[in-house]
Amino acid sequence: MISVDFSKAVRRIDDFAAPLIQAHRWLQEATGRGNDFVGWVNLPRDYDKEEYARIKAAAKKIQSDSRALVVIGIGGSYLGARGAIDFLCSPNYNLKKKDTPNIYFAGNGLSGDYLQEIVDLVGDDDFSVNVISKSGTTTEPAVAFRFFRELLEKRYGRDGAAKRIYATTDKARGALKSLADAEGYETFVVPDDVGGRYSVLTAVGLLPIAVAGVDLDALMGGAAKMMDACRRGNLDENPAWQYAAVRNALYQKGKKIEILAAYEPAFRFMAEWWKQLYGESEGKESKGLFPASVEFTADLHSMGQYIQQGERHLFETVVRFGPSKSRLKVPRDESDGDGLNFLAGRDMDYIAAQAMDGTLLAHVEGGVPNLVIQAGEKNAETLGELIYFFEYACGLSGYVLNVNPFDQPGVEAYKKNMFALLGKPGYEELGKELREKLGR
Amino acid sequence: MISVDFSKAVRRIDDFAAPLIQAHRWLQEATGRGNDFVGWVNLPRDYDKEEYARIKAAAKKIQSDSRALVVIGIGGSYLGARGAIDFLCSPNYNLKKKDTPNIYFAGNGLSGDYLQEIVDLVGDDDFSVNVISKSGTTTEPAVAFRFFRELLEKRYGRDGAAKRIYATTDKARGALKSLADAEGYETFVVPDDVGGRYSVLTAVGLLPIAVAGVDLDALMGGAAKMMDACRRGNLDENPAWQYAAVRNALYQKGKKIEILAAYEPAFRFMAEWWKQLYGESEGKESKGLFPASVEFTADLHSMGQYIQQGERHLFETVVRFGPSKSRLKVPRDESDGDGLNFLAGRDMDYIAAQAMDGTLLAHVEGGVPNLVIQAGEKNAETLGELIYFFEYACGLSGYVLNVNPFDQPGVEAYKKNMFALLGKPGYEELGKELREKLGR
Repeated sequence: MISVDFSKAVRRIDDFAAPLIQAHRWLQEATGRGNDFVGWVNLPRDYDKEEYARIKAAAKKIQSDSRALVVIGIGGSYLGARGAIDFLCSPNYNLKKKDTPNIYFAGNGLSGDYLQEIVDLVGDDDFSVNVISKSGTTTEPAVAFRFFRELLEKRYGRDGAAKRIYATTDKARGALKSLADAEGYETFVVPDDVGGRYSVLTAVGLLPIAVAGVDLDALMGGAAKMMDACRRGNLDENPAWQYAAVRNALYQKGKKIEILAAYEPAFRFMAEWWKQLYGESEGKESKGLFPASVEFTADLHSMGQYIQQGERHLFETVVRFGPSKSRLKVPRDESDGDGLNFLAGRDMDYIAAQAMDGTLLAHVEGGVPNLVIQAGEKNAETLGELIYFFEYACGLSGYVLNVNPFDQPGVEAYKKNMFALLGKPGYEELGKELREKLGR
Repeated sequence: MISVDFSKAVRRIDDFAAPLIQAHRWLQEATGRGNDFVGWVNLPRDYDKEEYARIKAAAKKIQSDSRALVVIGIGGSYLGARGAIDFLCSPNYNLKKKDTPNIYFAGNGLSGDYLQEIVDLVGDDDFSVNVISKSGTTTEPAVAFRFFRELLEKRYGRDGAAKRIYATTDKARGALKSLADAEGYETFVVPDDVGGRYSVLTAVGLLPIAVAGVDLDALMGGAAKMMDACRRGNLDENPAWQYAAVRNALYQKGKKIEILAAYEPAFRFMAEWWKQLYGESEGKESKGLFPASVEFTADLHSMGQYIQQGERHLFETVVRFGPSKSRLKVPRDESDGDGLNFLAGRDMDYIAAQAMDGTLLAHVEGGVPNLVIQAGEKNAETLGELIYFFEYACGLSGYVLNVNPFDQPGVEAYKKNMFALLGKPGYEELGKELREKLGR
């Protein structure tokens, strides 16, 4: 079970007990700001069991009839699944020999070269598409879906394509839901009360994760365990309370940047998921810790210098995992030219553990508070725990910061401008105004 | 040729002319702080032509006798090559059908599972190793090299292995140089006067980049062109002066974070390279902009909220590229359920360009100064330009900030602690002290 060690971060956090009691109640009773979007709180037990079985069945079907799955989505409809698959199956998942399909993520940007490359990588392989969009009209995924739908229909005919398209969308309304019903795509639900960045344990994340061969029961089981732990209404027993308290304490002390660090390259995209979760939940009203991430020890030889001696406006949150699967031992070298024979016979985990402790002390000495989140072995259950832990702590933390942790009003600004410049009907006035600002 | 548009970032930068004249002289005449490490300034023309030819020949040999190359290095001996190969050949390079070997990066961390995975991915393929380390004793690469050297010697015998190991190291001294001479490895030089983060255009970066099939002449040609542009001693004509001035101006105004943004997923690891370059050069003496990076438009649905409405302590530097290779056009859809037919027939570049402009105006409106670096098409020449541009601007910027842009004293702290905790001979006292701090 996840534990939080904040002994090297702040002296005490009991000042936060009162606001946390309040925040906790808002989450548990759905009575705080943004309370239409706290469906994720009880999700690990209260999910739709019928849909869950359909997700597993769809994953099996895709595994049986496809050598590639193209997952189309952006933001919360992208980062959770990508992070989980990278972490549990490897960032090299597609490169590995395996029985499950390759998984490509599309519709999360506007690069033509990137899109073309996915088309090329799919090549002649039999493939399916999981298009994930609440509305069906978000530009990036909608554009990508036009390409891949056309490709599928050319290859398999309209009926054949319909059997290879899985739409994760609104349960009743919207462009994608209408199309899916008209064409007969199998559909899964983006729940009304779960925002994108909290949606990885809904069909949004679960279908692609299942296609990669991950044990969904273990993932959900881990989340459910953490959900129980997060129900405890006190600072001593609830790791999410502790994390939420520490980061608010450090923010109040003037720290402006939180760096999430892990010593596993496979965690890189879970850190990206974490950035969306916290950045989007708290970055508003001119407030919020800026979320950044590093991959150690690689980045000790990159960002390490800044962390050790740069501006003192940051703190670190380090996620540590239990033992590796592989227990590689350093070979002995008789000549010992590199002077590393004192490590011969030691396994990598042992060396990494000393690097973690050494780095912790070095950074603390350099004025960087360090917070350690100790997780279990790198497996689906641990990831389920971590996901729920971060989500629950984020809800709490946003409430303690006195913002609505469940809206994202700032995301509309670029979209509106983009529509106006693209000449979308209805945006003519704004378009004129913007072109003037651009001097064209 | 690269140009910098700072009209949406700061009003004027001419206050920086005087310190830039000074900084420029320090770089050109090698008379400033850290002047033992400005060998990169004239490198694009003054490189060792004989070694350059050997690099190309070695790359050809590796291409002919290996299906995989394991590149062992950390920090500057990792990020440059990784960034360049990702950008020029794709982050999916290893997955693509091609005539050149797969390239795996190892020795840049301490994860046993990661190391084991590289071993598994290489599998039975014929492979070579490029081990990159000035001293040969840096823990991460040295440990990884022990594994892969053992693997090579088991498979090909000691002599056979020696023909597959390429050591990029000190020209005369150190553990790796001694071993290479004793075993007969081909060696390339990490120049004495070029620090790791400025070394991508030396053998450090060039050998792996060449193995991936990149046109080195184009890369070096681009860098040489930019070198000429960066020699111009005035603000109007020198884009590196402009960039260095703008970031210092914004830092003086209280901005603490610089976010490097690009709209190409393939640029992700060049941004990591940039983070090392700037973070390690300026993050010292409790100073320096914190370097962060985002991938747009994906991260407009993640960090976008924070950028638009969070703490106003940041600015953005956006790298834009010329036309894509693929000119995919959005398909028309008769039903137009997603309402995107107003984009039908438009190519992705057009849509992306409007997103870029729309985002620029939205973020500026939100109080985030925006700086645009306009680069050419995504090719080796453009990358050469960008690399030199960022390097030169970094040297200038560090001098204007009044730090030594060429040292990294803070990187030693974690290493010392790690050695002490690992029980390295000579670190006994520190080890005792640290264990006490850790309460064990």
